[in-house]
Amino acid sequence: MYQVSLTAIPNVPLVQSRDSVGDIVMTALQDANVSLKEQDIVVIASKIVSKAEGRVISLSTITPSDRAREIATISGKDPRIVELMIQESKAILRVKPGVVVTVHRLGFVCTSAGIDRANVEEGTVSLLPQNPDESAAKVRHLLMEKFGVNVAVVINDSFGIEYRAGSIGLALGVAGVPALLKGNSDEKDIYDRKRNVSILFADEISAAASLLMGQSSAGIPLVVVSGLQYPVTEESRITDLVVSSQIDSDLAEQGQS
Amino acid sequence: MYQVSLTAIPNVPLVQSRDSVGDIVMTALQDANVSLKEQDIVVIASKIVSKAEGRVISLSTITPSDRAREIATISGKDPRIVELMIQESKAILRVKPGVVVTVHRLGFVCTSAGIDRANVEEGTVSLLPQNPDESAAKVRHLLMEKFGVNVAVVINDSFGIEYRAGSIGLALGVAGVPALLKGNSDEKDIYDRKRNVSILFADEISAAASLLMGQSSAGIPLVVVSGLQYPVTEESRITDLVVSSQIDSDLAEQGQS
Repeated sequence: MYQVSLTAIPNVPLVQSRDSVGDIVMTALQDANVSLKEQDIVVIASKIVSKAEGRVISLSTITPSDRAREIATISGKDPRIVELMIQESKAILRVKPGVVVTVHRLGFVCTSAGIDRANVEEGTVSLLPQNPDESAAKVRHLLMEKFGVNVAVVINDSFGIEYRAGSIGLALGVAGVPALLKGNSDEKDIYDRKRNVSILFADEISAAASLLMGQSSAGIPLVVVSGLQYPVTEESRITDLVVSSQIDSDLAEQGQS
Repeated sequence: MYQVSLTAIPNVPLVQSRDSVGDIVMTALQDANVSLKEQDIVVIASKIVSKAEGRVISLSTITPSDRAREIATISGKDPRIVELMIQESKAILRVKPGVVVTVHRLGFVCTSAGIDRANVEEGTVSLLPQNPDESAAKVRHLLMEKFGVNVAVVINDSFGIEYRAGSIGLALGVAGVPALLKGNSDEKDIYDRKRNVSILFADEISAAASLLMGQSSAGIPLVVVSGLQYPVTEESRITDLVVSSQIDSDLAEQGQS
């Protein structure tokens, strides 16, 4: 019987700037007496990666530009946070009361460029990690060295879905596991017809892990997924999940490209 | 340690019209020697619910209207399928080459009104279940009676996410488990600040189960989620996940409301 287990790793310490994410993950796994098996996937909340990489910014250091003030007026957002959104983005896709939709410099669309006030000190905000794929790959290599097995790492975050009333865990960075699982030409439906379905595999892994990470107070930033079947890959990148052409066409419609 | 397990139930038979979904689920669980425990969640692929409810339509019986032909010309979709989309929807939100975005009669936004050619006989398509919450509730009551414990049921389906390159399992119907998990006023972040985060809980459960349901050929429409902590509710509805105001405002922008 095909069974997958999700294990929340307890007691991950509060992360400080310049901590090594790999060391933190390793220590937490050891303290929890969890050793990784072949093809286990470690899912890490992006917040602790951001913190370790010093991506927590004090708002008092930010001077908003005229453009940031304009967008802040329409959206009702703090102009300093809007200034950071602009710096973190390739483009601003939509501004409405209460929402700024951005094309993040990493290539995907998200609200507020992923900038977040939760679980950081008052007066500061966290930015997304500098390069989540690279951060995931670093942790992966450390874990593979330590445990002597092939494992994967996914970095997840909470994102909104258009027309839906809350947030869901989606993938932000991947290493060792496909971001997108493509139906290949051998893939057929139960009536033996060819199908070309692509599954947002890393997003589904991220959503699953988010179930255990839970609400903000839970403070569980680390979940191990065991038993999931997938093709090991060295080539996976988070941008495999992104339809750039759709983003470009929407930007072109606004005269931004 | 907080642990959740996902079990794919094998050998679910091909479902025929007028089968009882509850009986099918029960038989599959018994054949797999799986008995449900308190707060287990049974996730069912919407496709088998549609089939059991006779929601598989032969395209030869459909005559497209003028409006359906118009939308078919722009989108490149089969005019008969577009006719069904119109019948299944409150409104058509966007039409572009390759995509028709609909407001489904059940209240949420999805492409092609959830109409799908996969895993049904050639020349037919499946529509979404008539009332997925009700279908979920029926199965739930049967399972609770049979196993003598409180369990929940989620019906899931594959949906696209805007700007993302594939599909993800999201919730279509719920019974016994919150669709949306609201951060209540006691909920605080790790710095003890109040947070009002709402989590698309049934969507995360659906995505997790979809990992095991896998590609179309896998044909695993039934997954049991064990060990997940959640508040039991009798009041959950799939529309808890939907931001109707956002849909209404987008429709109003098009002069459709």
